[in-house]
Amino acid sequence: MSRFQTPNLKDLVPYVPGEQPREQLLLKLNTNESPFPPSEGVKQAVAAESERLQLYSDPTCLRLREALGAFLGVDPDEILMTNGSDQILALAFSSFGDAETPFVCPSLTYGFYPVLAGLYHIPYETIPLRDDFTIDPAQYEGLHKNIAFANPNAPTGCALSAAEVERIVAANPDRVVIVDEAYVDFGGETVVPLIHKYDNLLVTRTFSKSYSLAGARLGYGVGNRDLINDLNTLKYATDPYAVNRMTAAAGIAALQDHAYYRANCDAIMQTRAEAKAALEALGFCVADSRANFLFASHPDMDGEALYKALRGRGILVRHFDDPAIHNYNRITVGTREQMQQLLAAAETILKEGKV
Amino acid sequence: MSRFQTPNLKDLVPYVPGEQPREQLLLKLNTNESPFPPSEGVKQAVAAESERLQLYSDPTCLRLREALGAFLGVDPDEILMTNGSDQILALAFSSFGDAETPFVCPSLTYGFYPVLAGLYHIPYETIPLRDDFTIDPAQYEGLHKNIAFANPNAPTGCALSAAEVERIVAANPDRVVIVDEAYVDFGGETVVPLIHKYDNLLVTRTFSKSYSLAGARLGYGVGNRDLINDLNTLKYATDPYAVNRMTAAAGIAALQDHAYYRANCDAIMQTRAEAKAALEALGFCVADSRANFLFASHPDMDGEALYKALRGRGILVRHFDDPAIHNYNRITVGTREQMQQLLAAAETILKEGKV
Repeated sequence: MSRFQTPNLKDLVPYVPGEQPREQLLLKLNTNESPFPPSEGVKQAVAAESERLQLYSDPTCLRLREALGAFLGVDPDEILMTNGSDQILALAFSSFGDAETPFVCPSLTYGFYPVLAGLYHIPYETIPLRDDFTIDPAQYEGLHKNIAFANPNAPTGCALSAAEVERIVAANPDRVVIVDEAYVDFGGETVVPLIHKYDNLLVTRTFSKSYSLAGARLGYGVGNRDLINDLNTLKYATDPYAVNRMTAAAGIAALQDHAYYRANCDAIMQTRAEAKAALEALGFCVADSRANFLFASHPDMDGEALYKALRGRGILVRHFDDPAIHNYNRITVGTREQMQQLLAAAETILKEGKV
Repeated sequence: MSRFQTPNLKDLVPYVPGEQPREQLLLKLNTNESPFPPSEGVKQAVAAESERLQLYSDPTCLRLREALGAFLGVDPDEILMTNGSDQILALAFSSFGDAETPFVCPSLTYGFYPVLAGLYHIPYETIPLRDDFTIDPAQYEGLHKNIAFANPNAPTGCALSAAEVERIVAANPDRVVIVDEAYVDFGGETVVPLIHKYDNLLVTRTFSKSYSLAGARLGYGVGNRDLINDLNTLKYATDPYAVNRMTAAAGIAALQDHAYYRANCDAIMQTRAEAKAALEALGFCVADSRANFLFASHPDMDGEALYKALRGRGILVRHFDDPAIHNYNRITVGTREQMQQLLAAAETILKEGKV
């Protein structure tokens, strides 16, 4: 810390992103990236846009919002595009929370939420998950507080139905409910259509996972016009040109190539089912995932030890420091071949552990 | 405003970026974009990176910081890369200012600073410019407050020498001095080497103007390691993967193609001198610019009227609402041909005004 830092930030604990190793590993299954490259249309759109980089991007992202609005069945004015979905989440926490207006989140969810709450001095309250890692909607009724959760949830992959999410949104009409649908394309149910019924619902999304654009940074929020206006006001005060030209063009092209990405998501869901069954056959306990990852523990092996043993074999999965999930690892679902590598390594490690 | 917005933001006045017209105009000279496209190396680097967009960008931007550090003569740990320089400015205001720790700025400078101060509830104090629009360094001595200014300054283009900036930095050792060098490559003197002498100096820069990358969003801060650490802590709490893969690759390639960009800057400086002389020959009063724009007024014509008359002829320049500069327009220096178009239009408008 420098001697100039404001005391407002002295207790700030930054988010720790998943490791991005410099060395070449055999297999990287730790940050829920897609194993599939962007579509040809995306590459072409990016190349075309690279000729015009001397010109500012459109700070309103109008063309992209028009394309996305048509795709989602909402008005462009009900969408705000951001530099990754982390940015829409930061705008939302800062716009709707403050020292007197808490956020309530599941005890286990995306680790960025408590960081944002800490940054903006927002009280952060948690509600425990059920023993099977699912959210109990009944516990979220009538809280009179802002609520945020990922659905499907991270790092578990467990999902609520749209009806269950609606129950939470309807039961908290005086505060904002943020539903983070980063992983929804892998088998979750979206609540985007509900933004026309509830003015307190903000759905956040990303092109990172299902659209193979993690490295392009493109996220967005969908909600009532007034909510979006609030978020826009703050966006224009911090990062007016949040989305660059290449990424905006990539987003439009990705929507046009939707069939390619849908097929990729279907393949990942198929591989997920196979990998889950295979892990269970090895004795793993695996949460019921609707996301592009599996959350797994093994009764015979410490989670951190397994993480390290896999890393020693060049396979990177995500292990979290949280003591409540110390025995678990989050494993990104890659291609079928990648999962076979992971399964073979896990099987060997388990056998060696039993010696 | 929605009924959910925190009262903390109720008075927030967002920054208003220069107009990005949807209709095709003859000539856009309102946002200080380069008239020159990115280099071939940048286009190739972007195309190559577009194949890997399914993978997250490196949140530390290590390779880019290594290239930039070598170029600037500083250590990579003395640099933080951001999504445009607006983001490094936002991080800096938020890290070093608070309700008890004001920022002092020239009365006329980049309009984003007062927006940031308002957002973070930082008292914003201004010191008037001299009559010729220059900053008087003597007025910035021993303030015991954070200071921020652009050098060359916006929207005037006037610059302080490095020695004058050093005088300000040296005279305020107990607070941070932010020197915004967005336009330094067009004839300004940099103070980057002074970061090794003063731990309270933060230099902010952008690839938008001199490197023709406004549409890619790439900015950075250079300063003492402890300052950079503070800014990094905040970055990881709000936008961990701030810079996308394509933009990081573009930045590295742009540095490699430095000779191309240096020649472009030289051409712009030459054109600026010619355009200034030509405007003065038409009776304009033109500030002494070291940036890629000219700040000009005419005794016979209201500034807003001139702005509108030029717009009517398809030429967009920047007019500001600030009453202190109501009679001025900021005109981006484009190519020689573009400036001839501007001059011809201005001459015609002035003649018509005299009828």
